[in-house]
Amino acid sequence: MKNRTLFAIPDKQIYLCGHSLGPVCHAAKETLNEGLQSWSHELVGGWNKSAWIHLPQKLGKSIAPLIGAQPEEVIVADSTSINLLKCLLTALALNSQRKVILTEHDNFPTDHYIAQSITAIDPTIQVKTVANNELVAMLDETIAVLMLTQVNYRTSQKHDIASLTQKAHALGILVVWDLSHSVGAMSLACADDHVDFAVGCTYKYLNGGPGAPGFIYATKRHHERMVPMIKGWMGHKLPFAFAPDFEPAEGIKAFLTGTPAIMSLKALEGALTCFDAVDLSSLQEKSVKLSQQLIDKIQQALPMLHLVSPQAASVRGSHVAYAHPQAYAITQALISRGVIVDYREPGLIRMGISPLYIDELDIDRVVQTLIEIFESRLYQREVFQKRLLVT
Amino acid sequence: MKNRTLFAIPDKQIYLCGHSLGPVCHAAKETLNEGLQSWSHELVGGWNKSAWIHLPQKLGKSIAPLIGAQPEEVIVADSTSINLLKCLLTALALNSQRKVILTEHDNFPTDHYIAQSITAIDPTIQVKTVANNELVAMLDETIAVLMLTQVNYRTSQKHDIASLTQKAHALGILVVWDLSHSVGAMSLACADDHVDFAVGCTYKYLNGGPGAPGFIYATKRHHERMVPMIKGWMGHKLPFAFAPDFEPAEGIKAFLTGTPAIMSLKALEGALTCFDAVDLSSLQEKSVKLSQQLIDKIQQALPMLHLVSPQAASVRGSHVAYAHPQAYAITQALISRGVIVDYREPGLIRMGISPLYIDELDIDRVVQTLIEIFESRLYQREVFQKRLLVT
Repeated sequence: MKNRTLFAIPDKQIYLCGHSLGPVCHAAKETLNEGLQSWSHELVGGWNKSAWIHLPQKLGKSIAPLIGAQPEEVIVADSTSINLLKCLLTALALNSQRKVILTEHDNFPTDHYIAQSITAIDPTIQVKTVANNELVAMLDETIAVLMLTQVNYRTSQKHDIASLTQKAHALGILVVWDLSHSVGAMSLACADDHVDFAVGCTYKYLNGGPGAPGFIYATKRHHERMVPMIKGWMGHKLPFAFAPDFEPAEGIKAFLTGTPAIMSLKALEGALTCFDAVDLSSLQEKSVKLSQQLIDKIQQALPMLHLVSPQAASVRGSHVAYAHPQAYAITQALISRGVIVDYREPGLIRMGISPLYIDELDIDRVVQTLIEIFESRLYQREVFQKRLLVT
Repeated sequence: MKNRTLFAIPDKQIYLCGHSLGPVCHAAKETLNEGLQSWSHELVGGWNKSAWIHLPQKLGKSIAPLIGAQPEEVIVADSTSINLLKCLLTALALNSQRKVILTEHDNFPTDHYIAQSITAIDPTIQVKTVANNELVAMLDETIAVLMLTQVNYRTSQKHDIASLTQKAHALGILVVWDLSHSVGAMSLACADDHVDFAVGCTYKYLNGGPGAPGFIYATKRHHERMVPMIKGWMGHKLPFAFAPDFEPAEGIKAFLTGTPAIMSLKALEGALTCFDAVDLSSLQEKSVKLSQQLIDKIQQALPMLHLVSPQAASVRGSHVAYAHPQAYAITQALISRGVIVDYREPGLIRMGISPLYIDELDIDRVVQTLIEIFESRLYQREVFQKRLLVT
């Protein structure tokens, strides 16, 4: 298994925020610098000479094996929010006899907001939002699209993609999965699970850099019939013909819109090489093992922390969340001691376990630091109460 | 006036492609490197410590004076295509009794495609596309939004923003201006001209780097009533409250959607410092003077080149376009001689004059090189006939 030496993580830090923003790897620094050099020396010629124009597809091909997809089913473009908008609109158009998007209350907020954007633009579309445990019962033949995030950003609860997709398909429902909190930390099998569309984030476990563009997956089954609903010149069949009417590029490329943000893509290019030759089963195995180690040790030594993530590894993602009345102050005290974690409302400490650069010794040190923080009541200091803007 | 020494333009090159992709300036290299250092050393802490979270607004404030806007009227986000989608949807919602977007045939293709996206999503909306000289006659009280690009990407023909905006407003029509081929090369006065909304590109005359995010301007007059139609978490009033329902941030910030691409924004941050203390009237004056020099000398020495840009500087942008049956080969021959220009269908040579780094000696050398290319028939060589993917 690859390890921490690939990354520029500050000495003595244990970085448990890979579920929020992955660290920079040396390869990403190199490719970003390469991008800067091309811009300096080739200027506009970089689009051809350095093949910037092909980067969205090239990076899609690198991501494809990480989600169990074919190379031609994935492309990198825009943000996850915009990509979700594109997938939902295209899925609704494919299932146009139906007018309902079904999702769950605790989906990631921007996913809700994007669905709400669609109902604002097209009032014939309706969003049904139900509790997690009502999802299966609410599937019926009025639903056009089931929109879910596989791993819950707060609790780390993990959906069974295969099972839910199968149940949805049995009723003629298309599925759009948000893999933002999954990809890069576990096995995924979009093709085998017959997923219709998926989106995901590249700056969390994929370590692409702050705000790195997201990705879109669309199964080959839909490539012939699907229509891009947000039509931009990079998704045109012949962008440099500058035709006034939109004619979509073939396949996944039709999901491109405006000019891709090359500097951000160049950093992602290097970051993805950290996954070369990584076996996803081993990656997931390591994530599960380390998570279990953390959960077991906290249960033994720190009963005041309440586990809100599932106990069972089979339904848990790669972060672990604990509730505590002083959760925010505890995260700040941990950070002051070099254990980088984050906070989410309401009252949750999140610890992300990215199997590429976290190991067993790290987990032991995290638990030891938590014990010290509680023994010394370090977190009660006033300095740790102050809320930062980004949590 | 600032000059070429601010930029990393290869020696002996004359770079006439600033209308397509601006060169890298030394300041942009520094800020991009600063972004990489923050990511390396601060990791997720960079959102607060390096104030990444405020970059979209900070850069909007830097762009505001370049388009004659107030600092709180501009923000950097997404691509120009996506920003245009957001502006059109919001403008349509503000003028919801009307259902027509009016534009001109020769608008930039992605602007057409985005308008076509809206009609595909909401079939009650209609796009009327007319010839440039029919625009004023077609303005009437059925039109909700007039959508135009100020400077034509091919011919460089320039609209009079003040006059068209005034005529539109007199009939209750809102205007959305695309300033992609204007900003950074001329005076603009969005506030004084009462422009409702505008979008623009930051990688052309603003030199922000390949695919750098675009900007949105929305007049303060609309801030209270306008509603963001593409709702993303960064445009939420309290993004880190993670509320399931969207409540827009106040003012221009509501136009943010997903997580901004920080590495691309960091390059733009440095690039914009090249405009510090630049007087826009002088900038425009220099652009006009150099363009006139080029046009006059070509008219004298190269009658085989047919000027398709307007003769009158008052209705011309900062690039000059010539038609010739061998236009593509001529651009390639010029590039081989260090004069970097580009080609656009049908049969046009474009020469962009970015007043920040082009001077009179450059223009003389461009004309001299053109003369040599015609005398030697260099462009007739087979190697210059081969079409590249990106032109």
